[in-house]
Amino acid sequence: MKELIDKVIDFKRRISAKAPLVHNITNYVVMNLTANVTLALGASPVMAHAEEEVEEMTGLASALVINIGTLSQHWIKAMYLACEVARRRNIPVVFDPVGAGATKLRTDVSRYILDYHSPTVLRGNSSEILAIVKEGSSTKGVDSIHTLTDVKTEAVDLAKKKEIIIAITGPEDFISDGQTSVLVKNGHPLLAKITGSGCSSTSVIGTFLAVARDKSEYLWATAAGLAYYGLAAEYAAREHNAPGSFGFSLIDWLFSLDEQQIGEGIRIEKA
Amino acid sequence: MKELIDKVIDFKRRISAKAPLVHNITNYVVMNLTANVTLALGASPVMAHAEEEVEEMTGLASALVINIGTLSQHWIKAMYLACEVARRRNIPVVFDPVGAGATKLRTDVSRYILDYHSPTVLRGNSSEILAIVKEGSSTKGVDSIHTLTDVKTEAVDLAKKKEIIIAITGPEDFISDGQTSVLVKNGHPLLAKITGSGCSSTSVIGTFLAVARDKSEYLWATAAGLAYYGLAAEYAAREHNAPGSFGFSLIDWLFSLDEQQIGEGIRIEKA
Amino acid sequence: MKELIDKVIDFKRRISAKAPLVHNITNYVVMNLTANVTLALGASPVMAHAEEEVEEMTGLASALVINIGTLSQHWIKAMYLACEVARRRNIPVVFDPVGAGATKLRTDVSRYILDYHSPTVLRGNSSEILAIVKEGSSTKGVDSIHTLTDVKTEAVDLAKKKEIIIAITGPEDFISDGQTSVLVKNGHPLLAKITGSGCSSTSVIGTFLAVARDKSEYLWATAAGLAYYGLAAEYAAREHNAPGSFGFSLIDWLFSLDEQQIGEGIRIEKA
Repeated sequence: MKELIDKVIDFKRRISAKAPLVHNITNYVVMNLTANVTLALGASPVMAHAEEEVEEMTGLASALVINIGTLSQHWIKAMYLACEVARRRNIPVVFDPVGAGATKLRTDVSRYILDYHSPTVLRGNSSEILAIVKEGSSTKGVDSIHTLTDVKTEAVDLAKKKEIIIAITGPEDFISDGQTSVLVKNGHPLLAKITGSGCSSTSVIGTFLAVARDKSEYLWATAAGLAYYGLAAEYAAREHNAPGSFGFSLIDWLFSLDEQQIGEGIRIEKA
Repeated sequence: MKELIDKVIDFKRRISAKAPLVHNITNYVVMNLTANVTLALGASPVMAHAEEEVEEMTGLASALVINIGTLSQHWIKAMYLACEVARRRNIPVVFDPVGAGATKLRTDVSRYILDYHSPTVLRGNSSEILAIVKEGSSTKGVDSIHTLTDVKTEAVDLAKKKEIIIAITGPEDFISDGQTSVLVKNGHPLLAKITGSGCSSTSVIGTFLAVARDKSEYLWATAAGLAYYGLAAEYAAREHNAPGSFGFSLIDWLFSLDEQQIGEGIRIEKA
Repeated sequence: MKELIDKVIDFKRRISAKAPLVHNITNYVVMNLTANVTLALGASPVMAHAEEEVEEMTGLASALVINIGTLSQHWIKAMYLACEVARRRNIPVVFDPVGAGATKLRTDVSRYILDYHSPTVLRGNSSEILAIVKEGSSTKGVDSIHTLTDVKTEAVDLAKKKEIIIAITGPEDFISDGQTSVLVKNGHPLLAKITGSGCSSTSVIGTFLAVARDKSEYLWATAAGLAYYGLAAEYAAREHNAPGSFGFSLIDWLFSLDEQQIGEGIRIEKA
């Protein structure tokens, strides 16, 4: 546990020191929020999606965030191009299959990215992950109607088979690479009341991946990012009990948490 | 009056109980805000606009919100497809003709939607509604330069002719189905100082329509939504007198208003 | 100095009195923020980018803001069409070359707009301006890696050659038309921690340009806008030391600064 807390602190220090460029190809709804989240952590977000520039931009970045929250054909093509560059250059990629299960387009694109572009991390809610692994499973728009228990086994199997990390977020976050699994117990129910809180957690993962030294750190970077994000939410919820003010306070605390607060608050456990 | 207040409380309870899915095809400027507004009310927003998925998504939803604030050809096509599904499945549709009167494209698309896709509710400011009903009337960008008096008669006629509900928002909101007309006196001038406050009121209407039991409730759902929204604005303005803080506080109060506050504050009158 | 302060007050009064329409063709990330910034100043923002309506919308506006933060082909075409109308009708144009230097697309489009659409004002950070004037200079995504000293001489030369105003923002803002140069010393480091703070400063310039009486006032409108914006940031930072709350407070102060606060706080110097 102490070791895991030290990892969170170490990753956070590296983000502040390096201010890594994080390339986001994400949805219209959350672009502003996820850019602010990334900035608050000390990194440098960039959004770019034109086919003419997307490869060049990914090539400059230390991590790539792909999010299908508001999909259309040009954006899908841009995502594939960016993923291709990321793979060639060993840039870590976190993929957020927003609404997989709600429409065939989203489920199909999610599976395609998983099969052909092998992201470093797949981050979704229980329903989205289940929709990807299981034919016929559905989602209510972009919100989860399943729990971690419904999908945990399938997720571990998928992580092992695809050699990726899967992060399932919810009341508790479950992260697994198929061998090692951890639970992140930080977080707060008000997160579910602000739009893009899941998408933001994906961008946080991307930011932490951006300072991982090699593949061996990806699992811990993912868990560390989610725990840090959840802890910031806990601090925000101490001060605010409604989503408008909670939302801006979350940004404040992502920016402000100090090492003592991290040391006292992070709750990661091996699962 | 007491009866109308009870309706607001009843609709709000149903939203919390059902957490209906509300499909928004809206503009880039307000997507984040209107998603947060919808979430704050207790519903589940989803944004999707790709031709490949828009029909499937509308089919899952309990209401459809169409907003032309940042229009382009692909989006127009998606709106028409979604409206078509909504009509076939009796899903209520609220249409926001943002900037009708400012450009021919917006006026034409607005009239087309009105003529061929018969939305349940048309919600606009005085200038937008006037531009739709009257050749040669114009708007200043997306802000109103007319008052309710300029358009009230035409609006009632249009509502009757098209068999739709028209909601004209402004210092007071006027809602009519051509037979019955009501005035909502809740609201606050600071709403005009935050971008997307009109678009948000449209999404609030969509959320209230989503829990209406049948057509007979649509007029009251519309009035109830606007009154609830206006009351939240009044509470926000008690605490904040500038638009940045007022804006997040509006979300807080959309989330937090309790039944006593509704009972004391709602001001709906038959017009 | 006193004279410059009076100019800020005078421009601000005109914005409140005229509530000019400011047409923005900008990026997805900042649309909501820049619309709110423009509204807070007392003006009326409109966003429109469809080829079918963009010329009509620009024709209605008192200023045009062009920002390439999330570029794609349809948007580029819309920008060129809008610039064309603005030039024909003598509507001032402020251009923000977001991320010029990061990708060839952004650098090329920026140079094209500069060469063929002669904006009234070019506003960027040091790296962006340097990338435009100097082959092979680069940017880290959308954040600056150069300082004013690296680019000042080239900027003055470019302003003279192209007969435009160049505004380079950073810890101090430098504004030059090639003949007269001024420094704006208002501002706060927290601006760099919120996404779109540069884009917002561009929209502020657009709003001030919208009330300039003729070409002779464009330089002072630019400096006045940046100084007012920086002063609002200073007031926001007195109350908040983290980016989430600082961001909404910035909007509050853009709305609320009174003439005494302007009189005491504006720091513009001839450079």
